[in-house]
Amino acid sequence: MAKFYSVGVGAGDGSYITLGALRALEQADIIAVPVKKYGEKSTALEIIRKEFDTDKKEISELEFRMSGDTKVREESRRNSSEKIISALKDGKDVAMITLGDVSVYSTCTYVHNAVKNAGFELEIIPGITSFCAAADKAQISLCEGNESVAIIPSLKSNLLEKYIADFDTVVIMKSGNDTDVISDILKKYGLENNAIVSSCIGMENEVIEKIQKGKSYGYFTTVIVRK
Amino acid sequence: MAKFYSVGVGAGDGSYITLGALRALEQADIIAVPVKKYGEKSTALEIIRKEFDTDKKEISELEFRMSGDTKVREESRRNSSEKIISALKDGKDVAMITLGDVSVYSTCTYVHNAVKNAGFELEIIPGITSFCAAADKAQISLCEGNESVAIIPSLKSNLLEKYIADFDTVVIMKSGNDTDVISDILKKYGLENNAIVSSCIGMENEVIEKIQKGKSYGYFTTVIVRK
Repeated sequence: MAKFYSVGVGAGDGSYITLGALRALEQADIIAVPVKKYGEKSTALEIIRKEFDTDKKEISELEFRMSGDTKVREESRRNSSEKIISALKDGKDVAMITLGDVSVYSTCTYVHNAVKNAGFELEIIPGITSFCAAADKAQISLCEGNESVAIIPSLKSNLLEKYIADFDTVVIMKSGNDTDVISDILKKYGLENNAIVSSCIGMENEVIEKIQKGKSYGYFTTVIVRK
Repeated sequence: MAKFYSVGVGAGDGSYITLGALRALEQADIIAVPVKKYGEKSTALEIIRKEFDTDKKEISELEFRMSGDTKVREESRRNSSEKIISALKDGKDVAMITLGDVSVYSTCTYVHNAVKNAGFELEIIPGITSFCAAADKAQISLCEGNESVAIIPSLKSNLLEKYIADFDTVVIMKSGNDTDVISDILKKYGLENNAIVSSCIGMENEVIEKIQKGKSYGYFTTVIVRK
């Protein structure tokens, strides 16, 4: 029976691809590539192309709309899942690629459930998360000894204040447009020199630096506050 | 000038090794292997041996004592760092391997500082963390949409109660002997079916299952509580 692989390709650099991910790509007949809109560039596809010859595989775009309209989002998820299940029914192994790790803020859950409900085998291949890649590139620890870490999906200022009191490290994902607010909060607690901004890791426009007020960063931005 | 690589090899399975890790191992003249006591088995070394021919490299054990005596711990760290720096001074590239990711509860910081202070270049290669591997094997998400995650180093029951109130997911590392206490706390909140225990991922004695009261697990155990 055909198999579905959900593959984390890591945080932006081809060197983060795992041997397990490469093997799943080799095994697959179809590489499914999530895009926000058909025809749009896929960062995950660019990453695997650095290390894997995609020409020998069929590439299938899966549209996952980011619309505020729930119906639009759900319809695109349903269409993408049906596309995958149809290929699996044709006996083709499918590997869907996603940035970072599959368990961390990826939109794969809907597809996983649909694939399992249709009776096909699912294997999830882990990937390097952006916060691990960022900490390692910045040569800081996320946690040592008895320390704790909070990971939040974007800035909610009241949560940041609460969590920097409770935790040794706070990771704020997708925070590219919030660096001014984050800077102000950190200054209030004397932590203005304790935050690393990382953006587009492993890509041409990679940024890893101490947070700077007045600077805006892109979508793939993670801030690590380390007390 | 010789270079020092700190290499995360992932959570227990050779398939989690990244291309970057393999390249660092290829580049290195010496593979440095942290052990709790000289001559002891190294899980990290066993993992890379599944995918990399270590016979062509010099293997150097580094003792990191887990003694309660700070002086004993510090002395072993100092000795290990001196061993690495001595090899770097001889012009040899050294790759130190560690389980999981280098930024998450690894004992590498001391060595990194020593290597940098001695003027040598340091590169950290990320690895798959146990909590990502566990979530992916259990086919659950750690976080979706607007959810937050807390990672704590071991069970402190008051913190678990606090954090399961505040977070969608709580990851409790090194919790193999605390599963009874964790079970009791979860029952109090009606969450007794919401915890996955993972132990020795990718190894022969791998366990991934719902938490069971009365069962004890090994050192490499992570509990994921998902509300």
